[in-house]
Amino acid sequence: MNVVRVAIAGFGGVGRATANLLLARRSRYRQVHGADLRLVAVCGSRSGLADADGLEAGRLDVLEPGLSGPAFIEASGADILIEAGPSDFRTGAPGLPYLRSALSAGRDAIVISKGALVHSGPELRALAGSKGAMLKLSGAAAAALPTIDLLEHSLKGCEVLEIEGILNATTNYLLDSMMNRNHGFDEALARVQAGGFAEADPRNDTEGWDTASKLILIANFGLDAVLTMDDLVVEGIQSVTAHDIEAWRRQGLAPKLVGTLTRADGATRATVGIRTYPLSDPLAHVSGKNKAIRITTDAMGETIAIGSGTEPLATAAAALKDLEHILTARAARATGGQGRQE
Amino acid sequence: MNVVRVAIAGFGGVGRATANLLLARRSRYRQVHGADLRLVAVCGSRSGLADADGLEAGRLDVLEPGLSGPAFIEASGADILIEAGPSDFRTGAPGLPYLRSALSAGRDAIVISKGALVHSGPELRALAGSKGAMLKLSGAAAAALPTIDLLEHSLKGCEVLEIEGILNATTNYLLDSMMNRNHGFDEALARVQAGGFAEADPRNDTEGWDTASKLILIANFGLDAVLTMDDLVVEGIQSVTAHDIEAWRRQGLAPKLVGTLTRADGATRATVGIRTYPLSDPLAHVSGKNKAIRITTDAMGETIAIGSGTEPLATAAAALKDLEHILTARAARATGGQGRQE
Repeated sequence: MNVVRVAIAGFGGVGRATANLLLARRSRYRQVHGADLRLVAVCGSRSGLADADGLEAGRLDVLEPGLSGPAFIEASGADILIEAGPSDFRTGAPGLPYLRSALSAGRDAIVISKGALVHSGPELRALAGSKGAMLKLSGAAAAALPTIDLLEHSLKGCEVLEIEGILNATTNYLLDSMMNRNHGFDEALARVQAGGFAEADPRNDTEGWDTASKLILIANFGLDAVLTMDDLVVEGIQSVTAHDIEAWRRQGLAPKLVGTLTRADGATRATVGIRTYPLSDPLAHVSGKNKAIRITTDAMGETIAIGSGTEPLATAAAALKDLEHILTARAARATGGQGRQE
Repeated sequence: MNVVRVAIAGFGGVGRATANLLLARRSRYRQVHGADLRLVAVCGSRSGLADADGLEAGRLDVLEPGLSGPAFIEASGADILIEAGPSDFRTGAPGLPYLRSALSAGRDAIVISKGALVHSGPELRALAGSKGAMLKLSGAAAAALPTIDLLEHSLKGCEVLEIEGILNATTNYLLDSMMNRNHGFDEALARVQAGGFAEADPRNDTEGWDTASKLILIANFGLDAVLTMDDLVVEGIQSVTAHDIEAWRRQGLAPKLVGTLTRADGATRATVGIRTYPLSDPLAHVSGKNKAIRITTDAMGETIAIGSGTEPLATAAAALKDLEHILTARAARATGGQGRQE
């Protein structure tokens, strides 16, 4: 049986959910991929655990102080890194040094946090390419919602003309509250925060930066663009007025915070802002935790996907979908592709 | 440059659209896959054309009588067969002998017509597996709507609990007409036929057999089930009454002809019949030529896809998506998977 060693850097809710789901699926990996998956290291910012024979779920509750950082992960002998730390697109920290370390050594990487990819995506993509390493990011590019999957797999061969994405749950909750319960922005925000559906500092969501980050990942990794945050026009929902809400209601329109990519003459333009949809449009009914993408191509018309997984499980499942694609590719590599590929 | 020879059996609207799109994308195949694609043979039921150097678009208007059948395709030296003939799920003809011939020789096959796959899917799947040939069917399993793609790629690793599919355009048009324009079934049918959106004999659509056929393909090729038409409970829309329509309207529900797969204890149950959706459900807004699928899994919750490509181009594009997946797999096979796989 082929032993595959996995390490997880970043061990908050999503990192832990990923570890637990990976361990729960070990028999599947043996049966479907002929692979003995071992979780050889996990770490947060200041503590971690490592065991070359594989960590079991029962040992993950208590980490050891001091075991952290790219050198710690490197020493674990992991073949694949899952990066699930906090996300800061202005610095790329703390994920960037982990990813540089893993990819430089030719190890495959699965990225869940957006920060490093938004900050240094094209650099990391080039690094992976030069080292023959795979770099996957389903967990970062809207998690349970298939986005890059559709571009790379389901729409393969088609030319993308436009992409619209409803990619942020917090702004869905806020706009729902403003439209359906007549709350102003501040009251809606206070209620959504009280319900646990918005951060203490919600500006990353409300001002559109989270949507912009996901849009950059979709453009750079799904369409081979080279966008940075400076290339985007980003507007949020913080300046929506009672007058706007009333007008949309009167016209039978549903407002959503939408990231839009348009392509013309080889160039990709990206914007984030409010778009409104008539109620006959499926996107008008994407609310709460749900996310959606509409991709318009030359030959397949409009393709919509809507995802509604529950966090952190759905994000863990997105990252482990990447893991299975890596296992399939590794198997093809090892055997020279003998036998039938799915 | 690696020469890849393609033959198309079945040369009506979809076969011709596939040939033209393939020829239009030849430079893409060279650039992305390093493959020199040649259309070496096409045939309908009684005539065809072959040229080992590759047919160009201008030659496809006039076929030569007598050039047809599995032996004709076999003699063309094609590496990959695209089967795009008429579809009869009760006999599997005329596609079945073409597919048996190609797969038996270890050639990859891309299937657009549902008949042979519904009739003999598990046999063809086993034949492909035993010969190391790839068997792809995006064009048959709802064309521009990604269905098996989602199961095999985007939801990889998740356990499927339920699938609902709105898979037939004719019944969408009929139900739209009955709900929105107050037509009875017979009047709606006459108008939809006059508009060219229903066959002269529409029972394959209205009685649910087309939806059932697609559902069987999704179950057998996406979930490794072994269903035949006899395993399904199939109800159509032909007995919908004015009273039903009025009740749905009053309750704010949208009726759709839906194929449903449920899985429990390892068994897959399949039914076709009318389901109704509240207007807050995106599936309520899938009408006309649009198709949709909702897949519920253990870890990713609900994933919806909605497709709205225009025929025959969208179906051709679905078949040629399969072609690119085959080219990618062949490249991995040929090089032993050196370099980075997407």
